[in-house]
Amino acid sequence: VSVEPTARTVDDAAEGLVLVPGGAGFVGSHLCDRLVERGCHVLALDDLSTGDAEHVAHLARHPRFRLVVRDLATGLPDEARVARRIYNLACPASPAHYQRRPVQTTLTSVLGAWHLLEHAQSVGARLLQASTSEVYGDPEVHPQRESYWGHVNPIGERSCYDEGKRCAEALCFAYRREREVAIRVARIFNTYGPRLTPGDGRVVSNFVVQALRGDPLTVYGEGRQTRSFCYVDDTVEGLLRLMDSAHEGPFNIGNPREHTVLELAELVLRLTGSRSRLEHRPLPADDPRRRRPDIVAARAALGWEPRVALEDGLQRTIEWFRATLGLPSPRTVVLPAVAAITAA
Amino acid sequence: VSVEPTARTVDDAAEGLVLVPGGAGFVGSHLCDRLVERGCHVLALDDLSTGDAEHVAHLARHPRFRLVVRDLATGLPDEARVARRIYNLACPASPAHYQRRPVQTTLTSVLGAWHLLEHAQSVGARLLQASTSEVYGDPEVHPQRESYWGHVNPIGERSCYDEGKRCAEALCFAYRREREVAIRVARIFNTYGPRLTPGDGRVVSNFVVQALRGDPLTVYGEGRQTRSFCYVDDTVEGLLRLMDSAHEGPFNIGNPREHTVLELAELVLRLTGSRSRLEHRPLPADDPRRRRPDIVAARAALGWEPRVALEDGLQRTIEWFRATLGLPSPRTVVLPAVAAITAA
Repeated sequence: VSVEPTARTVDDAAEGLVLVPGGAGFVGSHLCDRLVERGCHVLALDDLSTGDAEHVAHLARHPRFRLVVRDLATGLPDEARVARRIYNLACPASPAHYQRRPVQTTLTSVLGAWHLLEHAQSVGARLLQASTSEVYGDPEVHPQRESYWGHVNPIGERSCYDEGKRCAEALCFAYRREREVAIRVARIFNTYGPRLTPGDGRVVSNFVVQALRGDPLTVYGEGRQTRSFCYVDDTVEGLLRLMDSAHEGPFNIGNPREHTVLELAELVLRLTGSRSRLEHRPLPADDPRRRRPDIVAARAALGWEPRVALEDGLQRTIEWFRATLGLPSPRTVVLPAVAAITAA
Repeated sequence: VSVEPTARTVDDAAEGLVLVPGGAGFVGSHLCDRLVERGCHVLALDDLSTGDAEHVAHLARHPRFRLVVRDLATGLPDEARVARRIYNLACPASPAHYQRRPVQTTLTSVLGAWHLLEHAQSVGARLLQASTSEVYGDPEVHPQRESYWGHVNPIGERSCYDEGKRCAEALCFAYRREREVAIRVARIFNTYGPRLTPGDGRVVSNFVVQALRGDPLTVYGEGRQTRSFCYVDDTVEGLLRLMDSAHEGPFNIGNPREHTVLELAELVLRLTGSRSRLEHRPLPADDPRRRRPDIVAARAALGWEPRVALEDGLQRTIEWFRATLGLPSPRTVVLPAVAAITAA
């Protein structure tokens, strides 16, 4: 896959270029798909540290898409200077990734937002900052509203990510207050779907990969802790609506429906037809705790809410992992209706 | 006062240069005094946005001191490259100042810390980061221990400062964890003394200036809210001890003794011999709330605690403001002992 700028002409100026830092990442690449479908000219930036050029390989020859390999913390390439809309999704987002490179994680968040805000100010662009449920840290209230200030350890193992993201939000609001930059802030909760990275340590990718390989599914603790999972198409739809809206946020973008880890494990086993057993391990000290978005604000202001049921989203995710891992097609599996698990 | 580098030779390399970003500020300039007294070679950096070259004018001809006017967010000047110890005090610190320039405040905090950490990593220098009680935000526990995670609004009016400082702490710990940079983190609480800026909106400078001018003392609310005030010499002593210690912190550096705003007003009136009356105004929505340091950790690890009683420190502060404002010498004032107010 060629990921460098090619000789083809892209008339960015015509419609205005949409810049997507982190565009070869998990959420970013799905966003690029939607933007290209919509007829936008898209310039994805990615340093490929956790993103993957394969995620946008199918767009490589598209006349309205380009991927430039670039570390956002070092600034913007010249070809980004005409961008009028920016979706900033550049940052490692799984603990396994960001704890390996904490310095770069914070710098990508803050220097990245800074470069983009300077650009937005100079050309009058609109910046959507992809923030995160991690700004709430280890929350003391459930579900979390946008007005909740969060509970974050400023010097803990996760602070490189959490504080970097909080600071990027603060910087966005500083540019808005002092310099009238148009900002949009989305706090993205747990998202899953095709193009998750096997081995990123998240529960959906862990379970699906383990189930497909016939390995035991690792369940921390008793598995009664809850998680909420938003299918990536729903997340992307929320970002698009926020960008188009007159509201700056912050808005929670996530699925408020909770499932226990055990429910997820059983659903994955059923959908994959796997005979893997569950293997319980002790809860790690910093195991992500319960987090559930309150999406009342996004529903009211953006008319947005998740539409994809967990069973459907998981099915698509499993298909993708199966293909990616080069595993054989599914055996015929009897899928009884599981009303309790399928989203309404 | 010449504030630019002069032709005189400073053999920085001999003893190792001490770098003090923010060295022309309130706390920074007192720190420079102490470092020069100790025999150190000191290079102060300051963009003079809230600092004042007058604060170090008495050091201008000292052979071991230099002030370079520089915005730390833009990087380090060449002459700083040999510094082996760094006290980073560069950042506007009063709400009146930082809310006027929120973008620059966040950038000074985060980009400043970043440049210094990169330098510290490259030459093996030790960085003391001056953090702040503002990392605790509007605390829900009293007094605050270093293990308290804080309660900060990530997008509020104060977030440019609070989140910038939290992120700088996180960045320090990221460099320590990933790259073994030697860091020291001090969380400085309310400090007062000579060289406070009249009109910076802090209660000590407000009251002293109002009393000396015979203007009414502005008391917000009933004045029963409490504050704790650390004399600047005590604060500087805490920073010096932390830098010399084997502990990285964070440590609270502040005075745990609480006084009501009314007590402070009455003490200022008595010490100045002023006949100003009190003028009560409604509490502003974001009035700094009660904050009091728990200094058990600093006491145990650094053998440090504040030594200057409020009455003594205020007396020196009043003398300084009197001289600075060009006001006449004090009339003779009867000063009865006030055991309840004087610190033990």
